[in-house]
Amino acid sequence: MAKQVLPSSPKNIAIAGATGAVGLEFLSVLEKIKFPVKNLKLLSSKRSAGNKLKFMGDEIIVEEMNKESFKNIDIALFSAGSSISKEYADVVTESGCVLVDNSSAFRMVEDVPLVVPEVNSDDIKNHKGIIANPNCSTIIMLMAVYPLHQKHPVKRIISSTYQAASGGGWALMDELTQSTKAYLEDKKYPPKELPFEYAFNLFSHNTPIGDNGYNQEEMKMVKETRKILHNNDIAISTTCVRVPVLRAHCISINLEFENQAPSEEEARNLIRDFPGVKIVDDREKNHFPMPAEASGIFDCLVGRIREDISNKGKGLDIFVAGDQLLKGAALNAVQIACYL
Amino acid sequence: MAKQVLPSSPKNIAIAGATGAVGLEFLSVLEKIKFPVKNLKLLSSKRSAGNKLKFMGDEIIVEEMNKESFKNIDIALFSAGSSISKEYADVVTESGCVLVDNSSAFRMVEDVPLVVPEVNSDDIKNHKGIIANPNCSTIIMLMAVYPLHQKHPVKRIISSTYQAASGGGWALMDELTQSTKAYLEDKKYPPKELPFEYAFNLFSHNTPIGDNGYNQEEMKMVKETRKILHNNDIAISTTCVRVPVLRAHCISINLEFENQAPSEEEARNLIRDFPGVKIVDDREKNHFPMPAEASGIFDCLVGRIREDISNKGKGLDIFVAGDQLLKGAALNAVQIACYL
Repeated sequence: MAKQVLPSSPKNIAIAGATGAVGLEFLSVLEKIKFPVKNLKLLSSKRSAGNKLKFMGDEIIVEEMNKESFKNIDIALFSAGSSISKEYADVVTESGCVLVDNSSAFRMVEDVPLVVPEVNSDDIKNHKGIIANPNCSTIIMLMAVYPLHQKHPVKRIISSTYQAASGGGWALMDELTQSTKAYLEDKKYPPKELPFEYAFNLFSHNTPIGDNGYNQEEMKMVKETRKILHNNDIAISTTCVRVPVLRAHCISINLEFENQAPSEEEARNLIRDFPGVKIVDDREKNHFPMPAEASGIFDCLVGRIREDISNKGKGLDIFVAGDQLLKGAALNAVQIACYL
Repeated sequence: MAKQVLPSSPKNIAIAGATGAVGLEFLSVLEKIKFPVKNLKLLSSKRSAGNKLKFMGDEIIVEEMNKESFKNIDIALFSAGSSISKEYADVVTESGCVLVDNSSAFRMVEDVPLVVPEVNSDDIKNHKGIIANPNCSTIIMLMAVYPLHQKHPVKRIISSTYQAASGGGWALMDELTQSTKAYLEDKKYPPKELPFEYAFNLFSHNTPIGDNGYNQEEMKMVKETRKILHNNDIAISTTCVRVPVLRAHCISINLEFENQAPSEEEARNLIRDFPGVKIVDDREKNHFPMPAEASGIFDCLVGRIREDISNKGKGLDIFVAGDQLLKGAALNAVQIACYL
């Protein structure tokens, strides 16, 4: 990752959904990049209130979120689900606090900037109190595509995802480990979060399917990509699949360019020079992006960069892996906060 | 699966690689479809010789394969790796026995038919002693694509695979379960079969990468598809990925047609009417093809059938799951044997 420019003065930060899988990563990212925090307020539902979390050596007690929680807060990082974001948005913004929201609640609202800082940080300045963090798969796909698109406009994207359990929070990560343990011990594990067994299985992303046959996750990738790129012409088809992996998403991406595709070498250079991505593309050692190496790091890993033999001169295939909880969620949101 | 037409007279069958993951499925398929077997000879390397396997209630002792093994054998089903197939091909055919080979040894040899019976069974009659079974991903992809291609010629295929451990035989299935067990017990498992850890991880198919950046598995899918369809113009790009799933492969497929794409309804009808495939496409219940349901069955499951919104009127997206050991290997080979 490129060195983050930090705010010049310390900020009062609130984290809503602090005990969630993304919530904990908000803490780890703030620590890791040495974000100047004056006061940190950790908020949750009644159920998780009272828990203690560590931040910079201090123990902080998680408080139950209420309408008074945002007084004197500069920035609220929300990852507590769409309905909580909608319920609290007015209270947060009326407190003079900026809401950086990881849910899908406001992403497609016209005057809410939807931001991947490496791509469209300029949009942040137009915010009216709320800035939305894109869907995890959208962010990770764009981190691989934008370095190319910036110089060689992309006409069409066809992608298939390999999405980790972390996208469904602790509950789904737990379902994956518990169901796998049960499977290996030859025991039954009745699915709780999912309609299907998860152990050693994969399935279409379990969000409602729209009239056009695409599920909500897929349409998020289509619509959000267009909004972030300020380009409604870019053609996108994607297939979102949940795989039995814990916390990093992968995406297989086929690109068609408006004009001549960049050569493999140029593509590699463009990606290498872009902040927040790292090339992992060793053909000799068969070493390419994979969840085991993308988990727990800030950079998205890009590889399998090759000319599309089905669309010579116009197409390129690439493969990306990125930590769903970090660049796909907490890191991206904290990066947005750095611009405030 | 459509009802298999069985040979009219009992055959003497030999299975080379009988104790392997595909080998055992040869036995189960022969039993299940009630293939008329006169004598069954089970062959293996020295290491596995002496094992006893059950067939139709009898115990058969596995013999070490040698150059005399194919006397009086009508059909030899081989799944013992390319080098063994190459070593024994002459001996087998000179014995007057037909070799149905599951390895990649002869697939691209000009006068060796490469056959998915539902697609190109006519090619079988041109054999000169050897018939090749295609790569598992090629077979499973074609089972989903051919029902459409037959009526609406496909111009371009872009696919991404989700390939199971069984493609690497017992050793890789064992590596997946053992490494996952170790992971869950917080123990180290040094990879044996793979250069990378397999537990809760996925990675690019671990076959050598050619000059064009595609790996061998990917180029098999490209070249074999063209040979089976007798169509060198069809444009194909594919990305082959190994996922932590035990025995069924999935493939996300984007199709572009020469002319107007079939409507979703027509596509569904064409696939439904095709032998060997079953539609699993319930948008209401979010129930689509998945390995857990494709494992252990003969049919390939096809779903997520939808108009490609990135290529309106010309494209279609589909998703297929098929058992790598059955339709991807043993079943397809036994079906070929049924035509002999």
